[in-house]
Formats: sequence, C-alpha cells, structure tokens
Amino acid sequence: MMGPRVWSSVRQGLSRGLARNVRGLASGEGRKVDISGIYPPVTTPFTATAEVDYGKLEENLHKLGTLPFRGFVVQGSTGEFPFLTSSERLEVVSRARQAMPKDKLLLAGSGCESTQATVEMTVSMAQVGADAALVVTPCYYRGRMSSAALIHHYTKVADLSPIPVVLYSVPANTGLDLPVDAVVTLSQHPNIVGMKDSSGDVTRMGLIVHKTRRQDFRVLAGSAGFLLASYALGAVGGVCTLANVLGAQLCQLERLCLTGQWEDAQKLQHRLIEPNAAVTRRFGIPGLKKTMDWFGYYGGPCRSPLQELRPEEEEALRVDFTSNGWL
Amino acid sequence: MMGPRVWSSVRQGLSRGLARNVRGLASGEGRKVDISGIYPPVTTPFTATAEVDYGKLEENLHKLGTLPFRGFVVQGSTGEFPFLTSSERLEVVSRARQAMPKDKLLLAGSGCESTQATVEMTVSMAQVGADAALVVTPCYYRGRMSSAALIHHYTKVADLSPIPVVLYSVPANTGLDLPVDAVVTLSQHPNIVGMKDSSGDVTRMGLIVHKTRRQDFRVLAGSAGFLLASYALGAVGGVCTLANVLGAQLCQLERLCLTGQWEDAQKLQHRLIEPNAAVTRRFGIPGLKKTMDWFGYYGGPCRSPLQELRPEEEEALRVDFTSNGWL
Amino acid sequence: MMGPRVWSSVRQGLSRGLARNVRGLASGEGRKVDISGIYPPVTTPFTATAEVDYGKLEENLHKLGTLPFRGFVVQGSTGEFPFLTSSERLEVVSRARQAMPKDKLLLAGSGCESTQATVEMTVSMAQVGADAALVVTPCYYRGRMSSAALIHHYTKVADLSPIPVVLYSVPANTGLDLPVDAVVTLSQHPNIVGMKDSSGDVTRMGLIVHKTRRQDFRVLAGSAGFLLASYALGAVGGVCTLANVLGAQLCQLERLCLTGQWEDAQKLQHRLIEPNAAVTRRFGIPGLKKTMDWFGYYGGPCRSPLQELRPEEEEALRVDFTSNGWL
Amino acid sequence: MMGPRVWSSVRQGLSRGLARNVRGLASGEGRKVDISGIYPPVTTPFTATAEVDYGKLEENLHKLGTLPFRGFVVQGSTGEFPFLTSSERLEVVSRARQAMPKDKLLLAGSGCESTQATVEMTVSMAQVGADAALVVTPCYYRGRMSSAALIHHYTKVADLSPIPVVLYSVPANTGLDLPVDAVVTLSQHPNIVGMKDSSGDVTRMGLIVHKTRRQDFRVLAGSAGFLLASYALGAVGGVCTLANVLGAQLCQLERLCLTGQWEDAQKLQHRLIEPNAAVTRRFGIPGLKKTMDWFGYYGGPCRSPLQELRPEEEEALRVDFTSNGWL
Repeated sequence: MMGPRVWSSVRQGLSRGLARNVRGLASGEGRKVDISGIYPPVTTPFTATAEVDYGKLEENLHKLGTLPFRGFVVQGSTGEFPFLTSSERLEVVSRARQAMPKDKLLLAGSGCESTQATVEMTVSMAQVGADAALVVTPCYYRGRMSSAALIHHYTKVADLSPIPVVLYSVPANTGLDLPVDAVVTLSQHPNIVGMKDSSGDVTRMGLIVHKTRRQDFRVLAGSAGFLLASYALGAVGGVCTLANVLGAQLCQLERLCLTGQWEDAQKLQHRLIEPNAAVTRRFGIPGLKKTMDWFGYYGGPCRSPLQELRPEEEEALRVDFTSNGWL
Repeated sequence: MMGPRVWSSVRQGLSRGLARNVRGLASGEGRKVDISGIYPPVTTPFTATAEVDYGKLEENLHKLGTLPFRGFVVQGSTGEFPFLTSSERLEVVSRARQAMPKDKLLLAGSGCESTQATVEMTVSMAQVGADAALVVTPCYYRGRMSSAALIHHYTKVADLSPIPVVLYSVPANTGLDLPVDAVVTLSQHPNIVGMKDSSGDVTRMGLIVHKTRRQDFRVLAGSAGFLLASYALGAVGGVCTLANVLGAQLCQLERLCLTGQWEDAQKLQHRLIEPNAAVTRRFGIPGLKKTMDWFGYYGGPCRSPLQELRPEEEEALRVDFTSNGWL
Repeated sequence: MMGPRVWSSVRQGLSRGLARNVRGLASGEGRKVDISGIYPPVTTPFTATAEVDYGKLEENLHKLGTLPFRGFVVQGSTGEFPFLTSSERLEVVSRARQAMPKDKLLLAGSGCESTQATVEMTVSMAQVGADAALVVTPCYYRGRMSSAALIHHYTKVADLSPIPVVLYSVPANTGLDLPVDAVVTLSQHPNIVGMKDSSGDVTRMGLIVHKTRRQDFRVLAGSAGFLLASYALGAVGGVCTLANVLGAQLCQLERLCLTGQWEDAQKLQHRLIEPNAAVTRRFGIPGLKKTMDWFGYYGGPCRSPLQELRPEEEEALRVDFTSNGWL
Repeated sequence: MMGPRVWSSVRQGLSRGLARNVRGLASGEGRKVDISGIYPPVTTPFTATAEVDYGKLEENLHKLGTLPFRGFVVQGSTGEFPFLTSSERLEVVSRARQAMPKDKLLLAGSGCESTQATVEMTVSMAQVGADAALVVTPCYYRGRMSSAALIHHYTKVADLSPIPVVLYSVPANTGLDLPVDAVVTLSQHPNIVGMKDSSGDVTRMGLIVHKTRRQDFRVLAGSAGFLLASYALGAVGGVCTLANVLGAQLCQLERLCLTGQWEDAQKLQHRLIEPNAAVTRRFGIPGLKKTMDWFGYYGGPCRSPLQELRPEEEEALRVDFTSNGWL
C-alpha cells in the first residue's frame, strides 16, 4: 500500500518502537492507558482539487485543541480514511500530532482488510506519533468474519503493535458487529485497552461492560446520540462526530454524567440527538463538513464519490440544528 | 372474529362505555392517566391439552400482585395473543381483572390487523375491565404501513376507544418500527397516553421523549435489557417480560433510577441483561415459561407451533440465570 | 375465532369430510392432485362502507373464469385475509366456489398463527368447497420458528386436513423463509402436494425442486416477476397477483414456457416485471385494486389501515403499465 | 496506494493508452467489446508464508486455459483483492496476462473506495494488460451512495479509463445494490459495456436487460447458482466462482442454454446449486481453495483474517460435492 522507501523507514522504526514502547502507554508494569473521555473524530480537509489541506487540518485542530477533550481520533470513518493513500493516512496523523496539544491522546485509525496490512499500518501510525490505534473490523468478507477469525486478527495486531489497541465496531459502515464473546476474549489481551462501539445498542454495550469488568478495558460510545445512555451503562467516554461542531456541549454532557446531574444531562442529550443524526446517519460527512463551515471550522469538500449536499438536504440539515437551539 | 351474540353485547356495552368513560382514566377534564411504572406482560397459562388454564392465571396474578408493580399487561406478545380466539382473549382479560389488586392498572393488548377489528377488540377489552389498551402496529402488509396509514389507524382506534390507548412498537415481532413522526403526531391525541417501545434503540426513545415533551405522553421501555438507559433518557417505566420472574428486582431497579442511585442501578442492570435476553430474544416464551417453573410460578406449555426447549437450550437458559447470581 | 354454531357444523362436516376425502384430490391410491398452472390470488371486494361485496366478487370471478387458469387462490395475502373475520373468510371461499367454473381448482388460504386454529380453518375451508389449502407460515414469533417448529406445525395441519396442503412462504409479509430442509422433509408427507414460494430467490427454488424431485411435490412461483425463471428452474406454475389484470398474458407466458419458446417468453416476461412490481411490492393491494378498475374488473377500496394511493402514486402506477405497452 | 516510480510510469502509459485505445476493445467506431461468456474469477494463490505464489497462479491458469472460457476475471472478490497491495494487484494481473491464452479476455478488478484511486487503478490495470475493468461499487459510506453518487463515480471512471468498464454489484460483500436506474443511465456511456450482477435477484436482472435493450450493454450473472435463470432472462454469461473447479460443467451449461436445451440445462443447473453455495456464501474462499486442491488445481491458504475451514466444515463442503455426483 505504500512505496518501498516509506516502508523501509517504517520497518526500521518498528524495531525501535517495539523496544521503547511508544509514548509509554502500554507500560511494562502491566497498567494500561486509560482512554476515558471525549474525542472528536476529526475530518480530513481537502482543497477544491481534492488534495489534503494540511494547513486547514492544523487550523481545525488548534481550535478544537482549546476544548477539554481527552484527545482526537484521526483517520476514523469520519476522516474519510478509505479515500486516502497509505502515505496520506500517515502524513495526516503526523501533522495532527504536531498540531495537537501534547497532553491530548491521538487515537489513529489503522484498520485495513488484511491482518498483515493492519499490523503494518498500526506500526506506522505509532511511528508518526499515535498514542493508540483504533482498529476497525475487516468486513469485505463479512460472511467469514466469525468470532474466531476476528479474535485471530485482533490478537495478531495487538501482539505486534507497539501502541495499545482499541477495538472498533461500526456496523453502519461494515455490516458487521464485533461479537460480544470476541470482545470478552480480546479484553484479556494486555495490549488491548478498550473498544469504540458505534452500534447504538446500549444493551449490548452494558453487557460488554459487565463481562469485561475484571479487565482494564474501557468502552467508548461511538456516537453522541447515545452518549448519556452509554455513561449510564458504564461507558467512560465517546468518540463523537458531533464533537467537531458541538464539542463544548459534549464535554459538558460528559461532566454532567460524571457528576451525577442526570436531569440536566438528559435535557442536553435530548437536544443533541437530531443534530447528531444529521451529521452521521442522515447526511454523513458531507453534512458534517457543511456544518463545520457554519460553526467556524473548515469543512470544505469531500473526496468523490461522496457528493455535496443538495440544497434541500442542506436546508433540512440546518433545521436539525436550529430547531434544537444550536444555530 | 367472534360470534354474533358476543358482539351484540359488546356493541351495547360500547355505547355505555363511551358514556361513562370507563374507569375514569381519560377524563373529560383533559388530564390523562399516568401509566408510569413497571408492568409484567403476563403469560397465558395452558393445560397439558393446550386449553387456557384460568386457575393458574389467577394463581400467578395473586403471587405477582404482591409486588409493587404499577399494573399488568394482559394479552401482550408474551401472552401468546395471536394463538387465542377473540373469546379467549377477552376471557383472559376478564379473569385477570378479577384476580388483580384493584389499584393496579390493567393494560390489555387489543391490536388486530384491521382497524375495524382493533376498534372492536379495544371496546370489548374496556367492557371486560381493561384500564387502557396496548395497541400493537398492524404489520402483515408492512410495505404499505406508512406513517400516514399508521396515523390513520391509531387515530380511528383512539377516537372510538372508551379507554386510553398506548401505542406499541415491537419490531422483533412485527418487522416494523412505528416512525417517530407518527408518534409525535399521535401524541397530541387526547386519548393516546403513551407508548411502549421495544426496539431497544434508546436514541430513538430519547428523541420521542424530547419531541413529545409538551404533551401528556409517557414512554415505557419494552424490555428489561435497556430499562436503566430508558429511565436515563426520560422513559417512566417498562413493560418487562423478565418481571414475570425477577419482578422484585425490576421494581428495585425502578426505585434506584427514580432516586438517582445510578451506580447501584448500573450494577443491577448489568446482571439483568443476560437473563432478559434469555427469556425474550434468545429462547422466547418457551424460555420464560420454563423459568417461571423454576421461580415458583406456573409456566407450563405453550400453544403450538411454539415448541418446548430442547435440553441443551434449557441448560443454556439456566446458565444465563446462574452466572448472574439469580439461581 | 368464530361463533359456536359455525364451529359445530364445521366439526360435523369434518368427520364427513375425512370419510369421503373431499373432492378426491388426495386419493387413497397414493396419487396426489397436480396443482400445475396459473392462479390469480383474487382480491376481496369491499363496498364503500368496507363490507365484503360478494356480488362484485362473483362478477370478478365470472370474468376471470373465462381465462385458461388452472384455478384461483382465495384468501391469500392479496385477499386481505388478515382483515377478515373467520366467518367472512369462509363465506368468501364458499361464494367463490359457487361462482367459479367447476373444473377450476380453488386453493384457499387457511393459515393462522396457531396450529390449532390453522387446522380448524383448513377443515372449514374444505367444508365450504376448497380443493386444497394454501397455508402461510406462522410468523409473529418468528424468532422461534425453527425448522423443527415449522415441520411440526405443517405435519399436524396436513395430518388433520381433509384436503391437500400447499406450503406458502412469503417473506415480504412474514419476515420468514420456510427453510429448504423443512420443505424437503415436508414434501414427503402424503397430504402435502406442493409449495408457493414468493421469495423470488430462484436459486433456492431450483434447489427445492432438485431435492424434492423424488416426491409428488410441485413448486409454484409466488409472483409474476420471476415466473419465467421459475419455469426454467422446474416450477410448474404460479400464483400471480398480476393475473388479476393481465391474466391472458400470464397464461400466454405459461404456454410459451411449456412449449419451449424461450425467446418470446423472455420478451413477454420483460414487459411484465414493472407492472408486477407496481401491484405488489411497490403499491400493494391498493395499487392492484386501482389497476383492476382500469382493466374492467371491480377493484374498489381496501379495508383500513390500507390506504388509497395518493395521486402521485397513482400516476407512477399508470406509467408502469403504459411504458410497457399494457395501457 | 503505490510508490512514486510505479505511478509515473502509469501516468506516461495513460497518455499512450488513451491514444491507442488499449487492445481495441472500445473502438472509435462506436462498437463495444462483447463480453458474453463464462469467466472464472481466479484466486490469488499464496505460499505458506502468505506471499503471492505467482508460479502457482500460472499453473492454475494454464490448466484453466484449456477450457472454453471467454476469459478470466483477475482480482475480483474471489481474488482476495482487498488483502493485496496495489503493486501486488497489478503484478497478479500482469502475470495472469502472460499466462493466459491470447484470445481470452482479461477482466481486471480495479475498484477502490475513492473515485480517484479507482481511476488510477483502472489505468494501471490497462497498462499491465487488462482488456476491461470490473469495477465494484464503493461501499464503506454506503449510506451516502445514492444513485447520483454512483453515477458520478462510474462516469468519471469510464471517462478516464482506456479500457471498457464493467459495472459490478455484489451486495453480499458491499451491503449495496447498484440501483437499476443508475445502471440504466450508465449503460448509455460509450465506455461502459456491461455489468456483473451477483445479487441473485433475477427479476432485477431481467428488468436491467429489458431497460438497457437499446444499448450495447451485456449482463453477466455473478454466480453459478442462478446461471440458467440469468440466461433465461437475457444475460449472456457469467462470472462464476464455481468455474474454478467445475469449469467444464459451467461451459456445458452455457452451451445447453445457448442451444435451447432447457431440460438438460435444468438438470445440470440443479446439481450445481449446492456446490456453488458451498464455495461462495457458505464456506467462502477458504472453501473454494480447499475444493481446488481436490480438483487438481492449487488452492492453498488464504491471507488472514480468512481462516482455514474447520474439519466439520470441510466435511460438509465435501458432502455438497459428493451428494451431487461431482466427487
């Protein structure tokens, strides 16, 4: 997936990386990094000619960096990672690392379809500064992605990764739920520290929290629509697309949940459901990027085949924000 | 669906019922009944020859009647209503009314496929003592069950029902979600007091609570697996199959949620997820009835085509209760 | 499901029926009735006040009776059977039997959710003149409708039915496919003569034909859209909603297939796909009834909750017929 | 997706390619290549250490090359293309071109998630000898893959491709059907010559044939299970995984269909359904590769995360072949 020179430096780095245990997150003393908190999965800004706009990426991160996030997800589904070359994926993470405050965690999406490519990408992500790897389930051959296959895949990746691994299940994109029994098995791996679950099935999420309670294993909600419910069930944070535009509000929701102010939390959560659906399921990344333009960030175009919103879609998007008092 | 003599008495009763506003739940002063609380959807006990065993029904209700439930759902999905004749459905409700404590609400399942049959069944249910009607979405022609069709259906039923109507969406059985926009429209009807939502999609549930907040409209969780999350999002109770065997625990979970003891609530909720799945999605009514036998109630056989559990299923069912400390 | 007087006569008839082997279709000599051919699943006409209009039913049948159909399906999905009382279901079949040419087969839909109700309805259908019973899969508890449960259900029905039984799998309505292994087992029952498969999965249909080839077991396509493909795979006819308006054309398609004129068959089939989708999946029974009005039959209203087509739907329906040269 | 040196040669080649209209398949005179016929989608052989085994690829192609196929699909879903680097994908196609008889068509899978990457890969595929490009629908953001988005994507690819483009819809892998209206629009593009449809919905396939009948547009069945039905509906061939092991039989089935011997065709088709399901839906590429070992080809391992069959799976796979007389 990348040219020979890039890879040879990656491979040299790999041996170094394995030696020094990158950024100390998975320490030799058996304590895992705590990933609790709120993360925006940042977008990849493009110019009008669909080149990655690293300057805009840095600008966005500077603005977002002032909010009390735990960190950033870079190259998650929201980052259009399937549209980037391997080099671009790494460069985006590298630039994000530079632009981000040092104390924030960088979770880098490193999932590929093959186990080998995922290992290589994860190692490379560590080299360019990722604190942990967010690894989406492979899915093209989903009919054969049994628990056994997925356990094998993630175990291999976690064995060889110099940074902690976070499991990532996002059935809306992959058509595949990472099965609960596979999660429970994988939670025992010393280099697997948690999971992002975007299914929205909080019963499943509660069961995962329950059955991994004896492990150092953290569950993050994969969307702002069920963030409050996730905290109620034992999740400890969220990777929320909506945090790219309503980041302060999501950090406030986190605080309300953590301090037990459930009534205020409920009121706030209610007002976030429609805007969240608008920038995820309903209008996708084009919807999010349009909204970012409204909220003072750089949104810009998506890479093709993602298309700009039609005018009536843009109008409906706006209503989802105005009717809830955010615009 | 019933013989002419039954219906003529129903029709006479209907005019009386409309006059006296049955049990006063939908009063003329514009205040609706408050359905908040926990309800077991009771099973219909059968003899070995598949006759309804009314004596066992009464015994079960006497035992369940000592628990602090808000009331009982009679002839919901758990009651095998599709397997009963119209006469049996009414007789079961009538007997349940007699056996239940007077201060408990009786919510009677009265949904049929046609609007007309649903109206007639709802009126009949009122005649035999139901306090409110729980009306499942018609579903056989689900491809044509648009919001408009469902709004028309429920409006007609609510217009003609002498007792308050509770909407009931249970996609696992019907293959159909009652759309949010239909719920919002229907929430404005003076004789529609709430909804039972069994989808398990708490984001959707939160949105329904949010968008009906200016109405007297109550949302009940349709299953124990997401009861805590539902309270967190603004639901006010639940119709929980699991309450047929772990009723005290579900009432305790309600109390913990209502008094803001979210940590204890979470721990209890976690231990209820697997048992709940076992008596619903996983092993269905045969699983529930088997468990009732274990917990001192009468379970007994189901009507065909529902089959008894196979020995290995029964063993797995037991594990779901023992591993969570309930057996 | 019906008043006591109806049932007592049904039960008397049942003993007679079992003795004389109703209409000789399932003979003692081990030969089963051959159901090969084309059948319209007739609609149930209603008056403006939603009463069954038996006169219009007879008129429609007189017109349809002039076409070379093998027979008629009465009270299939197209007949709005879930909206009729048991008495109405029987009366419609009884009237249809009178109005139909004597040499045509009457396949009566007799499926109910419970095994017992299905047996009783099947027996009653035989009493009022059905030649065979078309028995849809029970589906409300589809999560528990395993092969074993369905085999048990159909075996019981076939054991007790005085007329031959035709299996009926229609996942668009039931959310359930009758599994191939269950079909293969059931094909060995002496009183089960075939199957109507509406799934549209002709690979599955071919496999069923293949695996039941040593039985007297006939497969009928459940829709006109894949009628040619079904013949190519070994089906021997079809129950086609579209035959209510383009009956001559479907009989012609049958003839072309049976005489090996595949090129002409293909051309005709192609022109039937959109009209067929329009009166089934796309616009349902309201679409079919509207079209019947155009083609000289009585369509009329549906029972609620089925709604009339909106003007733009009616326009789109018309286009599906005109663009293929049928209007 | 590839190193800079590879790409610069690709880009030089591109300008040449556009000039000379690679291999003459999409000629300036407005006649398109005719892709009618049977194609095995060849596997990518791997060594025990998961390196591509080009020698085994050539051996397999030499054996397959003796059969009367129209050509080969290289780097389709069966070729594990998502597990290969861009360089490997190109090298596999290049080697296949060398090993294949000159008169056979080479259809190369060139689909990527982004439009730009797909264009580049398609151009590269042309450079290394592909006769046409088989372009799978992008799918990761399937919620936004509207007809408009897909039309835009394929139009761009076809505009810029030096070789003809074949659309490829495979919902089992992508969770996405290429909509009929998009196909009809795209069929008018001078550089789009046909489609591989793996949905198995022959009604849909018939409609596509019907609505594109005025274009030079060919439809290929995407699987052997519905090959006969596809011919009956107007398809002109198939890309059949099963052709990797029962290639002679599939060519025979083609001949029977083309010469109107439908009864023999039906018998043969019936015996191919279970073996086909076994090497596709049921046991996937691991099942196919195991079967190839039995039939004298090189199967070998898959890349991870695809796992070897468990012994009981292998036994079931064998039964699907033996019970139909193929082993």
